[in-house]
Amino acid sequence: MTDGRVNPAETPPPGWAEAAAGLGRDLHLELAGDRGGGRGGRWAVLAGALREAIRSGRLPAGTRLPPYRSLAADLGMARNAVADAYAELVAEGWLTARQGSGTRVAERAAPPAAPDPAPAPAPRPAFDLRQGVPLTGSFPRTSWLAASRRALTAAPNDAFGPGDPRGRIELRRALAGYLARARGVRTSPGRIVVCSGVAGALRLLATVPQVRSAPVAVEAYGLPQHRAILTGAGLRTLPLPVDGRGADPAGLAASGAASVLLTPAHQFPTGVALHPDRRAAAVGWARETGGLVFEDDYDGEFRYDRQPVGAVQGLDPERVAYLGSVSKSLSPAVRIGWMALPAHLVDAVVAAKGEREPSVSVLDQLALAEFIESGGYDRHLRGMRQRYRRRRDQLAAALAEQAPQVEVTGIAAGLHAVLRLPAGTEAAVARDAALQGLAVEALTGFRHPDAAPGGDRDGLVVGYAAPPDTAFAAALVALCRVLAGA
Amino acid sequence: MTDGRVNPAETPPPGWAEAAAGLGRDLHLELAGDRGGGRGGRWAVLAGALREAIRSGRLPAGTRLPPYRSLAADLGMARNAVADAYAELVAEGWLTARQGSGTRVAERAAPPAAPDPAPAPAPRPAFDLRQGVPLTGSFPRTSWLAASRRALTAAPNDAFGPGDPRGRIELRRALAGYLARARGVRTSPGRIVVCSGVAGALRLLATVPQVRSAPVAVEAYGLPQHRAILTGAGLRTLPLPVDGRGADPAGLAASGAASVLLTPAHQFPTGVALHPDRRAAAVGWARETGGLVFEDDYDGEFRYDRQPVGAVQGLDPERVAYLGSVSKSLSPAVRIGWMALPAHLVDAVVAAKGEREPSVSVLDQLALAEFIESGGYDRHLRGMRQRYRRRRDQLAAALAEQAPQVEVTGIAAGLHAVLRLPAGTEAAVARDAALQGLAVEALTGFRHPDAAPGGDRDGLVVGYAAPPDTAFAAALVALCRVLAGA
Repeated sequence: MTDGRVNPAETPPPGWAEAAAGLGRDLHLELAGDRGGGRGGRWAVLAGALREAIRSGRLPAGTRLPPYRSLAADLGMARNAVADAYAELVAEGWLTARQGSGTRVAERAAPPAAPDPAPAPAPRPAFDLRQGVPLTGSFPRTSWLAASRRALTAAPNDAFGPGDPRGRIELRRALAGYLARARGVRTSPGRIVVCSGVAGALRLLATVPQVRSAPVAVEAYGLPQHRAILTGAGLRTLPLPVDGRGADPAGLAASGAASVLLTPAHQFPTGVALHPDRRAAAVGWARETGGLVFEDDYDGEFRYDRQPVGAVQGLDPERVAYLGSVSKSLSPAVRIGWMALPAHLVDAVVAAKGEREPSVSVLDQLALAEFIESGGYDRHLRGMRQRYRRRRDQLAAALAEQAPQVEVTGIAAGLHAVLRLPAGTEAAVARDAALQGLAVEALTGFRHPDAAPGGDRDGLVVGYAAPPDTAFAAALVALCRVLAGA
Repeated sequence: MTDGRVNPAETPPPGWAEAAAGLGRDLHLELAGDRGGGRGGRWAVLAGALREAIRSGRLPAGTRLPPYRSLAADLGMARNAVADAYAELVAEGWLTARQGSGTRVAERAAPPAAPDPAPAPAPRPAFDLRQGVPLTGSFPRTSWLAASRRALTAAPNDAFGPGDPRGRIELRRALAGYLARARGVRTSPGRIVVCSGVAGALRLLATVPQVRSAPVAVEAYGLPQHRAILTGAGLRTLPLPVDGRGADPAGLAASGAASVLLTPAHQFPTGVALHPDRRAAAVGWARETGGLVFEDDYDGEFRYDRQPVGAVQGLDPERVAYLGSVSKSLSPAVRIGWMALPAHLVDAVVAAKGEREPSVSVLDQLALAEFIESGGYDRHLRGMRQRYRRRRDQLAAALAEQAPQVEVTGIAAGLHAVLRLPAGTEAAVARDAALQGLAVEALTGFRHPDAAPGGDRDGLVVGYAAPPDTAFAAALVALCRVLAGA
């Protein structure tokens, strides 16, 4: 085994002086710039310059390099420095050093770089009323940073090591308290698993053997991404009809499903609260059959008319897994969500998490725990509730005035409205919107492909949270223009 | 469809006064405490108390509640407040309200809560010299917080919305510069994909069709978790022999592998740098066969004797995917890793990421970008290099003095050493260590199950980074005690 040092021929053959001088000139420009930047002295700069010369093709494969003495003399560098640079490039595979044949540019060292992949196309609509994103300008930078500072300063050293796959205890404690108080969730820190969001939670739940044993019932209208996660995990999804009382669990017993995914606080996207009888029926089905309810409380915090209805999970913590995140309440940039699990699911979910999903940033977990405990989260939610309510009112008022034929539904809570359209007109309205540069989503885009065809389901899903204040007014004008013609 | 309001009988039957008074007393204690905490007034407190009374069984299923007028009088509350509380519990499913039969506790409302799952067992060894974890007490809290503050203050609003699945451009730019400068990586921001770590990177790469088309070659000694990720993704792994020149790629061509996972800078765990010939051979194989090299640069930053050898990726960015993370350089609590990908893999990896892995905390991405750009990362690495080198020297000195028969290898770089043991003694030494309360790992624990049995491979893998300074000295004493008898 060699020690990685070069052993160039000791006596330079004739002509080397010119070669060294030429190479030196070639490298001169690069050497003048400080390409080293980090550690290492002039030899590192020389190594970088040689590397670049090989990459660029100026030194083609097979080129024999001058002995380091000649190059050192030409560059005015110490011999050892040049020898070190050669050794480095030999170690990296750019050069080869063979007894008797000197130091040469390696055969395979200089492929041309392929062009960069095309950047992801990101056409920005002129007006954007798509749902799913909060007002990004409202992220509470100052209070979050303050919470971050307090949390990081107070954290024990072991917070910076590998941690509990369920998440930091500080956050699980804060969540158990907050969810009980704000959402009527009955849980304990030991049953909470921190994850990256509701999608991450579904990915983990989809690995649980009980869930995998049978299809998952879902709402006939819902987030296609959530269905795709379940389908992608090899699970079949069965649509439950959705009407003015939310999803109808009546068909669950006959469906053969072992679990059901619901949005009880505010059906997504139709916007109705799950009727009390149906809450009870879903939990009753789970108890009788040993089934599981996944409660996606995606915007339980944003209810405008009264205190939000408590979580279904409170009715039976052993049959309902409660899922939530800060993606809408704070920002999707903070990748934190949570599950409040039935005790019998904790081990299986934690095992899947260890294998499949990395733990969430501990720094953010600590900051969020402190943000909740210090009251910053409640304050932020109260402020956002007011802002969003104002926007909802602006939307409703503008439509009432300028498109009175359109029924606005689902606005008691959440960050979007569903505008009911006359049957058969949805596609034309969506097309008009696109022509005006207005991005909105058609209600049918959320429909389960196997859902029974419903009569009265043409509509637009209009998110009112995301645009900055100025853009919101203009987007409303564009929306009304489109609908005035509907 | 009801509006969720209760319609209790208007005329209370005889006996209700006592019932209301009794219920009032029952609820009194709870009402005295401030269980409301968040929004809502006294009605929310009453609703909480009623919920608790139902949960605890004090109000069994079927119990008829007093009309709200009676309860209001008894509690000294406004009638509307009590009516609101009833309505809330009806909406949540705790109570039922039927015309003519009053308000009753619902049949299914009160399951007993199951006991908490047992906490994960976490026996702490008296002395811990396991590899894989940096010195947690060294996390640069102050400079990280300062970078965080600068980054969050300067970030555009759209940073708080849904982002590029490749990661924030600020971080990809900072990484492209840093990796070129410090590790000789040739990449561009468009080819970098931010992920949660090297394990996360492997999970994503394991979805790429080309990778899935054939087995993955791995080093015969390596991280079992990495092999498990590949195996878990349905891929077969084939061991490449590892010797004093690192992994031997000679068998790649005949193996049928389409990709190979290597640790060139510092073979994990044996600690040798991949020999230049083998670097060239691995890249040569990839070029000739269209194969892929995954370069896990797990501790390329920690080399003590000289400038670290540059990344193999620099030899051919179109055939080598470079993988790294801050888990050892900063902390595993910051869940950030990266891939510098061949251009032809970017789209496939981004697609897999969108479906499978959530994006990494944008707050941390922005902070890390600023930490790198401001020089904080380099400063931290320089400081840690000194501290770790000191520990390595202490370890080597202690062993030279007290267990001179043990050969210490692999310590030119990294955060661990491999102590070679006489053949056949590893199990006994590991047992002795356990008896002393010393956690270290046996070298055979890293061996691929299909690796050809080697002769001279008994050893201990000793991590010297993680313990606090005081614990480190004591752990060294324990280690020497164990080895003195070996």
